[in-house]
Amino acid sequence: MLKTFSKYKQKIDSKNKEITEELANLKIPWAHDFFYNISLSTQKGKGIRGSLVLFILEAFNKKVDDDALFLALSLEYYHNALLIHDDIMDHDNLRRGVSSTHHHYELLAKDKGVKDAKDFGNSMAICVGDLSIFAAQLCLSKIKNLNKKNYQSLIELLGKEFIKVGLGQAQDLVFTHYSKIPDSKEVIEMYNNKTARYTFSLPLIAGAIMANKDNETIKLLDKLGLALGFIFQLSDDNLSLYGNSKKTGKALGNDIKENKKTLYRILLYEKANKNDKVLIEKIFNQGKSINKNVNIIKDLINKYKINLKLNKLMTKHINRAYKYSQKIKMKKEYLQTINEIITYLKTRDK
Amino acid sequence: MLKTFSKYKQKIDSKNKEITEELANLKIPWAHDFFYNISLSTQKGKGIRGSLVLFILEAFNKKVDDDALFLALSLEYYHNALLIHDDIMDHDNLRRGVSSTHHHYELLAKDKGVKDAKDFGNSMAICVGDLSIFAAQLCLSKIKNLNKKNYQSLIELLGKEFIKVGLGQAQDLVFTHYSKIPDSKEVIEMYNNKTARYTFSLPLIAGAIMANKDNETIKLLDKLGLALGFIFQLSDDNLSLYGNSKKTGKALGNDIKENKKTLYRILLYEKANKNDKVLIEKIFNQGKSINKNVNIIKDLINKYKINLKLNKLMTKHINRAYKYSQKIKMKKEYLQTINEIITYLKTRDK
Repeated sequence: MLKTFSKYKQKIDSKNKEITEELANLKIPWAHDFFYNISLSTQKGKGIRGSLVLFILEAFNKKVDDDALFLALSLEYYHNALLIHDDIMDHDNLRRGVSSTHHHYELLAKDKGVKDAKDFGNSMAICVGDLSIFAAQLCLSKIKNLNKKNYQSLIELLGKEFIKVGLGQAQDLVFTHYSKIPDSKEVIEMYNNKTARYTFSLPLIAGAIMANKDNETIKLLDKLGLALGFIFQLSDDNLSLYGNSKKTGKALGNDIKENKKTLYRILLYEKANKNDKVLIEKIFNQGKSINKNVNIIKDLINKYKINLKLNKLMTKHINRAYKYSQKIKMKKEYLQTINEIITYLKTRDK
Repeated sequence: MLKTFSKYKQKIDSKNKEITEELANLKIPWAHDFFYNISLSTQKGKGIRGSLVLFILEAFNKKVDDDALFLALSLEYYHNALLIHDDIMDHDNLRRGVSSTHHHYELLAKDKGVKDAKDFGNSMAICVGDLSIFAAQLCLSKIKNLNKKNYQSLIELLGKEFIKVGLGQAQDLVFTHYSKIPDSKEVIEMYNNKTARYTFSLPLIAGAIMANKDNETIKLLDKLGLALGFIFQLSDDNLSLYGNSKKTGKALGNDIKENKKTLYRILLYEKANKNDKVLIEKIFNQGKSINKNVNIIKDLINKYKINLKLNKLMTKHINRAYKYSQKIKMKKEYLQTINEIITYLKTRDK
């Protein structure tokens, strides 16, 4: 992540260790194992959501105190939960360079001679995901010096926004499993709900509520977040095709293997001629991510100049992000950081 | 459930319809489908947890107002979420007499010609469960007239208690999948964490916090809840062997099919001679629930007088429940209702 953000990430990591140690010490079997797992996977993340909370609070002249850290950490735990459940659904055995949670417990069970180790791994990971949500809620209960109105606004915001994430996730599943191919408008809607809103709009708005900002500012942050989120998701899709799996911590061509309806694929399919359409369908339905398939898709992307179109979309959202950020009142140095975030998001390699 | 509780259940159902209608109208694909599903499965439940909140509030001279209903409904949504995830883990295709959530989406996917319909069903159900948790959180944000201290205590209580449920669930999974047979103390600990606390202690304490009661009362309610929860779980195990599946809405002998380490099984195994031990292991490892197996287990339970021992345990907890309830200050009529609850719990047929 951004260099400017590493100071935030450090503080969140340290609060994370404090809370998970408290929970790991619950005298209940598996507490230690589960919360150690949650602590570690949260630390391994980029911490974008939590860092954005702390960043926007500072931009609005608020201190990064314990309350701020509990809010930031709460978002990281929610996110961690969603990733754990997401990895079960996507059959992703690799997350952030190590075994994903369900795979970790599958391997553990195999070691213990459990017959249905895969099933056991998935079930344990459903539990760990749920626990990560409950830990997020516990963090929220530790916020001390916020007035009741703003505190309840936070609880409401999180409830509402994560409902949208859940629905976006379901939409993604339907796109993946159903044969009907969605149009690009539907895919962008899914991106917004599943990723953009909760990765950017939500932390920015949550920080703004904690800083007691007005509705006008909150609306601008919402729009800024959506623009940033779109850039983020597009570069995510890009990394699945062009990234270095050692850096991303995920297998190359995963989206192909999982038959994901990314914008790349939708735009490609819309442009392709009849023969190429058949080829694209064939490759995505094979459920493999071997290099050959990735290269065929890359060639087709070149042939139909899909990157040109996506770059245009990227530029449009970058300009939007600049526009909205300039309307929000904050010191020049923080505006500069937003510019750095934009640059990072479009060029990130992990 | 209890006749006295049906008035509470009606009020919760009506608030449930109100909230899920609001959420179903979100202009996001699947919102209508998912929240209709959540609304229906919540209505089909007994509503014990929500009703207990309303009951204890009334017992403490508080009105059943909107705030009370949001708290009650919140617990029902959390519970609904746990059942949905639990059914995935247990491969239960039947819940409350209809298709469980994952099975419902599996059938839907089959209808649409989806290849991996089972996988799709499980994934959708993970999403619906998560959404049910987020809906629970949204309900909590709608509580209006509670002071900040008590409001945050509620958020903290829910976070902490559901963490225990998640850990209890994991323990249950480990007992089911690992070959090591736990002792009865471990099984009772799992019962407490997985079921007893959040079904009885949690709603009673949550109501008491809303009614601004002292710590002494809360401690008594906690103990009362644990006793009630144990009676509840024991009768649950009993219904899985001796119940009428038309009434329970679940297949007979499900615990045998799922290789569950119930107290019945643990006590039976502890008492059984060498040959019978082999037979018990064989039956539970077959993964079938055919009537013949259920009958063999019932015969062994008779042979080793396991019901005698369990009845003793039941009586011990019933006496405990009476003892604690009498120490809590409330009008005679409400104490009478607690007695009715105890009678209901030990004799329920669904």
